[in-house]
Amino acid sequence: MGEQQLDVVTADDLYYVPVSEFDRLRAKRLDAVEEAQTFALLARLNTLYMIARAWSGHLGTSFSSLEIMSWLFLREMRNLDAGPQACDVFFSSKGHDAPALYNVLIALGLLEQDQIHHLRRIHGLPGHPHVETPYIQANTGSLGMGISKAKGMALANRLLGVDQKIFVLTGDGELQEGQFWESLQSAVNMGLHEITVIIDHNKIQSDTWVKDVSDLGGLEAKLRAFGWHVERVDGHDIAALQRVFRAVDGVRDKPKAIIADTVKGKGVSFMEGPAMKVGELYNYHSGAPNEQEYASGSAELIAQAQERFKTHGLGELKIESAVRQPRKPVLKVERLVVAYTQALLRQAETHPEIIALDADLVKDCGLVDFRARFPERFVECGIAEQDMVSMACGMAHRGALPIAHSFACFLAARPNEQIYNQCSESSKVIYVGSLAGLLPGGPGHSHQSVRDISALGSVPGLILAEPCTEQEVVALVDFMVNGTEESSYLRLVSLGWPVPFSLPANYTAEVGRGTVVRDGDDAIVFGYGPWMLANAWEATERLATEGVSIKLVNLPWLNRLDTQWLRDVIGPIRQIMTLDNHYVHGGQGDMVAAAIAELALSPISRVTRLGVTELPQCGTNDEVLHHHKLDVDGLFASMQQAWRASPATVGPSQDAPGAGRRG
Amino acid sequence: MGEQQLDVVTADDLYYVPVSEFDRLRAKRLDAVEEAQTFALLARLNTLYMIARAWSGHLGTSFSSLEIMSWLFLREMRNLDAGPQACDVFFSSKGHDAPALYNVLIALGLLEQDQIHHLRRIHGLPGHPHVETPYIQANTGSLGMGISKAKGMALANRLLGVDQKIFVLTGDGELQEGQFWESLQSAVNMGLHEITVIIDHNKIQSDTWVKDVSDLGGLEAKLRAFGWHVERVDGHDIAALQRVFRAVDGVRDKPKAIIADTVKGKGVSFMEGPAMKVGELYNYHSGAPNEQEYASGSAELIAQAQERFKTHGLGELKIESAVRQPRKPVLKVERLVVAYTQALLRQAETHPEIIALDADLVKDCGLVDFRARFPERFVECGIAEQDMVSMACGMAHRGALPIAHSFACFLAARPNEQIYNQCSESSKVIYVGSLAGLLPGGPGHSHQSVRDISALGSVPGLILAEPCTEQEVVALVDFMVNGTEESSYLRLVSLGWPVPFSLPANYTAEVGRGTVVRDGDDAIVFGYGPWMLANAWEATERLATEGVSIKLVNLPWLNRLDTQWLRDVIGPIRQIMTLDNHYVHGGQGDMVAAAIAELALSPISRVTRLGVTELPQCGTNDEVLHHHKLDVDGLFASMQQAWRASPATVGPSQDAPGAGRRG
Repeated sequence: MGEQQLDVVTADDLYYVPVSEFDRLRAKRLDAVEEAQTFALLARLNTLYMIARAWSGHLGTSFSSLEIMSWLFLREMRNLDAGPQACDVFFSSKGHDAPALYNVLIALGLLEQDQIHHLRRIHGLPGHPHVETPYIQANTGSLGMGISKAKGMALANRLLGVDQKIFVLTGDGELQEGQFWESLQSAVNMGLHEITVIIDHNKIQSDTWVKDVSDLGGLEAKLRAFGWHVERVDGHDIAALQRVFRAVDGVRDKPKAIIADTVKGKGVSFMEGPAMKVGELYNYHSGAPNEQEYASGSAELIAQAQERFKTHGLGELKIESAVRQPRKPVLKVERLVVAYTQALLRQAETHPEIIALDADLVKDCGLVDFRARFPERFVECGIAEQDMVSMACGMAHRGALPIAHSFACFLAARPNEQIYNQCSESSKVIYVGSLAGLLPGGPGHSHQSVRDISALGSVPGLILAEPCTEQEVVALVDFMVNGTEESSYLRLVSLGWPVPFSLPANYTAEVGRGTVVRDGDDAIVFGYGPWMLANAWEATERLATEGVSIKLVNLPWLNRLDTQWLRDVIGPIRQIMTLDNHYVHGGQGDMVAAAIAELALSPISRVTRLGVTELPQCGTNDEVLHHHKLDVDGLFASMQQAWRASPATVGPSQDAPGAGRRG
Repeated sequence: MGEQQLDVVTADDLYYVPVSEFDRLRAKRLDAVEEAQTFALLARLNTLYMIARAWSGHLGTSFSSLEIMSWLFLREMRNLDAGPQACDVFFSSKGHDAPALYNVLIALGLLEQDQIHHLRRIHGLPGHPHVETPYIQANTGSLGMGISKAKGMALANRLLGVDQKIFVLTGDGELQEGQFWESLQSAVNMGLHEITVIIDHNKIQSDTWVKDVSDLGGLEAKLRAFGWHVERVDGHDIAALQRVFRAVDGVRDKPKAIIADTVKGKGVSFMEGPAMKVGELYNYHSGAPNEQEYASGSAELIAQAQERFKTHGLGELKIESAVRQPRKPVLKVERLVVAYTQALLRQAETHPEIIALDADLVKDCGLVDFRARFPERFVECGIAEQDMVSMACGMAHRGALPIAHSFACFLAARPNEQIYNQCSESSKVIYVGSLAGLLPGGPGHSHQSVRDISALGSVPGLILAEPCTEQEVVALVDFMVNGTEESSYLRLVSLGWPVPFSLPANYTAEVGRGTVVRDGDDAIVFGYGPWMLANAWEATERLATEGVSIKLVNLPWLNRLDTQWLRDVIGPIRQIMTLDNHYVHGGQGDMVAAAIAELALSPISRVTRLGVTELPQCGTNDEVLHHHKLDVDGLFASMQQAWRASPATVGPSQDAPGAGRRG
């Protein structure tokens, strides 16, 4: 990461502006608008660096918000030096623009410079904001909570006699969330003028135009109808931003909303929203630029920055560089979402009553092909999970078979009561929650769904199941469509993962029953899903070299258990372990362990439950698995420990009562 | 229930109009408006009957909606005779007006006449609508889902080629729910003109004025800003209703909303909203009229009805009567919500940072006194649980100690993700969910919170606890305020219940540990909460007469368990039972059973879990407990069965390995 004079941008190097150059810019005491414009440009280059280095992040929405954030932190926020509890408050409700915010904070010395290299790394900067990071004032990542939080802050401040302005940045797709509208009215009734909401109106949500997902209609009129003071501004025109912030300063009797018209991906020509061709998806919402995109994009930004530095009389802009780690090679992996797409299409061919509903995750949920093939049976609900689920409920009531999709973290929680309400009608809806579980570790705990089994597991008439291979996806989808009258929840790991075993060719889904994927006599391990079972399989292989023979069982059912099967598959084994890609509390392991306590197996059995036991870490997949001790090493160590702590495993004979006793 | 000529209304009798009189009215072929006005009046008398007889129900909102419902079912709904799947669709999103709807359906012969006597009885008419009842098209009771459901119905109908009008009745307080606004936009984008929403704008939500809770602002302007066609009408003027329905018929390109100005409690002078004095609460939202109120109210309605029948040339209106069952005498009971009020006030005296947040249940959540004593620290959020929780999150972030209140059913589910988000910030908020569990059985499963332990149990940093006595309420509130840095959820049974034991005078809350409330040697039973433990206590008394001695343990912790304590309290006992006022799956019993499986007690133990295993029944408390086998008889039988099925209980010696084995 040596400093260097930059002549040629190469595909392998990454470039960023050191804090010293921001300091040099600010020391020049330029006109405030000029300074902020250049500041934002440098922060944009660093944001590109950060995301490229992490191979993951949200470029488009970071770029659209940079002028706003830069101006706020340079000129609007008071008492920044007094620390995050005493200064004016800013936070982003959309949250996926965290890289932009991090770089503004780093440039101002409010966050350590070294953190620029640690986006989405463990103990680094989380993919979505977390209050443990300095100057991060709210955990966000799930949408629509921002104004509510700001209201709480303002009311507590009034009670405690604290004077703070509170700035909240929201997305525009985010406005589809009901909580946004729910939060508007009382802010007016309470006269919370401390709050200024800036809507980063870049017109693209996830991968496509907001107007094509769920058009917002007349946004200004709506906000005014709710009684808010409304301004509209070009969100990249800093002089205009300055004027609008002065204008809202004068409003002292009501909360204020500034609709900032912005461009998603602003600043790099080919990343800008309007460069998207008709019928294409926007490519820079999440993920990272490839080598060529990075080279072109950074070259554009560097050229502009150098030009501005010269114009300011600051001479050459010093840029530092780092070598980009190559992307991990892709192995032969099980891609469950891809398999789901195919399974869904196949079922839809013969089931004209199937309707697929999506909540603004058409690509991530594997629905692009379905939408193309059955456009009249595809309903895009926008970021509105409660609405989606109750719509599905209404559809089911009229004879359709709705299949509702979102990320598991949102689907299990946001419309939690709506799912219960639907199931209480004894109608049939299928829910598909992708991005389930601890991995990928990059987006952070708002997206790491490790409590959905608990949140949905006790809904009556709702069967929860998770496949471990593409083959099992097909079997479970077939079961959910054709094999049950109950509603169901398909829990899908989105991350591709190599799985070292396969299920029988004639595998079919039988409720409450699993499949032995590796035989053994000394202990038995129950688990589900691709990476957990794959890691467990590797761990059992290692234990085999120590002479311990472990039976590994894929149990895809998360809230159903056939206790007769359980008794049979356990057989004479008395050392039992469960693995949850979920919190241990409320996971599959609780169900299995409780059933074993009820079976009262003789001689005595011992159940050890493993899984997640604390808020998930954000980091690379390896880092996260290692931290939670769910990588191969961690599972191996836990299995070994359980084995060593246990009494000698009972052999096939059942005639050794008490052999499992502990003193 | 003999037919009789009515001269004097007495306090002990209840009066209703038989279907034959509705038939006589309709056979007269009066002018449509005149007919509907009289029809509504008779249905109002029957609604009063139904609620008085059940000693429970929602009078105010039923009365405000009766002209609307009567007109819809008499003149707007097509193909009623073809059955509920083929006719036009009507349902109430607010749902607590179910008694009005039932009486309209009964009067039209669409629902059995005998059901008029069976409101809130098992196998009768549920307190909130359930699709098992004929012509009930949606389960409601939790607010804000109506338009979403209607959209789903309309889209499925379009796909399946069905032509149906869909009428949805909403409340006005209900409009505070975010899902209402979330559902508006796509209805416009999709041009769902099939949908007509009628807002029963009676201006009172629960017990007070909507404008004092969270003023709706310019409702018409808001709805128009969302692109809906909007009409406004006097909701009790049937001629005006007729005109407005003809007007919206002509709108074929967008969904329609009719704001119907109504009067809560319409038709009985002293029950009408405007009769409420300044500073008073509205008395007729839920519950039932007392004897004198019933006598006066029914006399008013009967006099009007007789007058109208004479005017119509129909002669005397025949009225039938029934004897009202006396209200159950009040025993000396533990009133946990009352105790909570006192505990909260006491903590608030010494904790100026405490702020109480309420979601339109100030009376039911025991907050009336707090509001009076600390008005500046009381925040009424309206029916907006997501907003409330994220506000609490923001308050905690600024140094306050927020305590957020609602019914357990709503609090655990509606803001489920917001609670997780708050806890992920490691801040401290206390949640108080009243009306927890299976009882009261009258409101039905939308309000019977029996999955909240599961829905919240795995939220990291959130401690769930439920007290069984007033004394324990005080101890747990003290713990939650002063004894932990974690967030917590206080699960409160609202129903008063006599508890036959008391906790030690020096009782304090220790996380994960319970208290033996009855000693015994043969078996051990774990449970929590007043009625479950009281019923279990009675059952153990009975078992004692059969020579079986059962230890009963109050374990108030729902997702925390001290396993060392568990081992100690179990001691040599090997027959173990858990009791959940919750679904067995995901309840406390799962936690206890799983821990026992991990302890691997020697000799072998057997755990039996009891609790709710199906969607809760609606009925009287006795009926519901009996159905779910959780009354004293049911618990006695289960305990007896478990005892008989088990091997001989092991004595105090641990030297009997295998004694607990089964063949």
